[in-house]
Amino acid sequence: MPEKIILDTDPGVDDAMALYFALRSPELEVVGLTTVFGNGPTELTTLNALRLLEIAGRTDIPVARGAANPLQGVYANTAAVVHGDDGQGNVFLPAPTTQPIAHSAAEFIVERVLAEPGTITLLAIGPLTNLALALQREPRIAGLVRRVVLMGGNAFVPGNLSPAAEANIFNDVDAADRVFAAAWPVTMIGLDVTHHATMSSAQLEHYGRAGNPLAAHLARITPFYRDFTRTFNGLEGIYVHDSTAVAFLVCPEAFTTQKHRIRVDTQGFARGKTWPARVGLYGSEAWAGRIEVDVAVEVDGPRTVSLELQRVCGSIP
Amino acid sequence: MPEKIILDTDPGVDDAMALYFALRSPELEVVGLTTVFGNGPTELTTLNALRLLEIAGRTDIPVARGAANPLQGVYANTAAVVHGDDGQGNVFLPAPTTQPIAHSAAEFIVERVLAEPGTITLLAIGPLTNLALALQREPRIAGLVRRVVLMGGNAFVPGNLSPAAEANIFNDVDAADRVFAAAWPVTMIGLDVTHHATMSSAQLEHYGRAGNPLAAHLARITPFYRDFTRTFNGLEGIYVHDSTAVAFLVCPEAFTTQKHRIRVDTQGFARGKTWPARVGLYGSEAWAGRIEVDVAVEVDGPRTVSLELQRVCGSIP
Repeated sequence: MPEKIILDTDPGVDDAMALYFALRSPELEVVGLTTVFGNGPTELTTLNALRLLEIAGRTDIPVARGAANPLQGVYANTAAVVHGDDGQGNVFLPAPTTQPIAHSAAEFIVERVLAEPGTITLLAIGPLTNLALALQREPRIAGLVRRVVLMGGNAFVPGNLSPAAEANIFNDVDAADRVFAAAWPVTMIGLDVTHHATMSSAQLEHYGRAGNPLAAHLARITPFYRDFTRTFNGLEGIYVHDSTAVAFLVCPEAFTTQKHRIRVDTQGFARGKTWPARVGLYGSEAWAGRIEVDVAVEVDGPRTVSLELQRVCGSIP
Repeated sequence: MPEKIILDTDPGVDDAMALYFALRSPELEVVGLTTVFGNGPTELTTLNALRLLEIAGRTDIPVARGAANPLQGVYANTAAVVHGDDGQGNVFLPAPTTQPIAHSAAEFIVERVLAEPGTITLLAIGPLTNLALALQREPRIAGLVRRVVLMGGNAFVPGNLSPAAEANIFNDVDAADRVFAAAWPVTMIGLDVTHHATMSSAQLEHYGRAGNPLAAHLARITPFYRDFTRTFNGLEGIYVHDSTAVAFLVCPEAFTTQKHRIRVDTQGFARGKTWPARVGLYGSEAWAGRIEVDVAVEVDGPRTVSLELQRVCGSIP
């Protein structure tokens, strides 16, 4: 039985890679997409979610539009330089032929989790606003999800949106803190591991030769993202942040995790930092009562990246 | 010409080790001790400073009493469990026969720095209150010291007084932030390196066999500290935090440093965290205008610890 996942996403170039990795992994069944702001405004990421499913021939999967702004404040799009003005590497796809469902992302999450207790995994690869809103709507979902796996945060490494913070967490610090406070099983796939999961420019070339529409789309959209990473990080290739969370679901043996309670710094110049504390650690009273999160601290990046390529492209040596 | 240092200190077991390491290093000339709260209240650490010099036969070195409380708030002694009720491993030394000078620590620092421009190094191994008060009294000292080397902070590793913070910084976050903001050359010797500078229980045994009064004193006071470390950290030996700052002065080639601007988190559950940001790093506007600090990120711990033992004990293989 594949693990049923709701993918909460803000496509986004690496979101597209993660979605296609998930769709082509027999261990997973994508039962819905929920959209959120982040790599673009929610209006745009929702269109992209619909387009990505259409390209993949999977318009059977429902898309629920999510929050347009964080719990506090207003979303400001600073990601166009990374993901393009269209959120898909400036390829400017035609409008989708399908529509999102009438229910919001939070409504959809609550309904699906209540309908199949213990079954649904929330795979969140954008800011955590929809998950926080779903918790607010129906706190019982914390005990009824199978688990939550999220791409976000940085436990023991610097951030990427600031010296302190990772972008998904930074984009809604209050939502993130609620997600880390709730009594559900959470795995955090943060920069500690995603900065060790790089797909080289040579590997990216495989997408253009694979001969399937999913890979062909990734071949179109990844050059923009790669050019950004080359300029910004001096890396000849890309970080596959979001895909690494998918990899955790299909290949957990490539990861090492540690149990830490997590609090999110919500104020000041370190806003968005995910602060780990082991249970019983000296001076950790401020973390008391929090659940323990499985924090990924090591990954066999070459293995997870190869697996991703194999799954999306077909056979790659 | 040896480097003239004022040792700002809160003895403390590892402060005693650092002082004796410095006194027995020909590269250094200790021109004064300034005292501060931290490993005990200032009244106690001042007595200990006097006693330590008396044991070493160096009552020629002046001791200036420093601040009893941080810039904001009141000092609370939580260190007795680490350093003993007497700050010297519960050996309860007799009262010193000498007195501190009439001038305060901040006054002494300002006077000595102004008297010998470009010559004096401030070696700070306690909370940074005295340095901040000296800066406040005479801001020109920033341009007139030779350099500032401090034991404190944690750039890329967890804290020791809380999951976020190192003890010296935590004990006066405002003073620390002022020290990292001032335009003087600072080297930060933090937990990033001191947690890699451990003296084993077997190495500690050398002190008892060395046959000089400095080593003999360390042989008396270190067992208490070692027992704490054994219980608290599960380490068969001790971290020589403060001595590692001395080691940086006498053996800089054992260290790797990086240039980062540093801000100190002064509020909330991450209070006391020293936040690094490289110049030009994305999202680092909050660090703008700060000087670049040399942050020690790697150390050859076995080398610096052996050197310390050799210097204090005489010849050790």
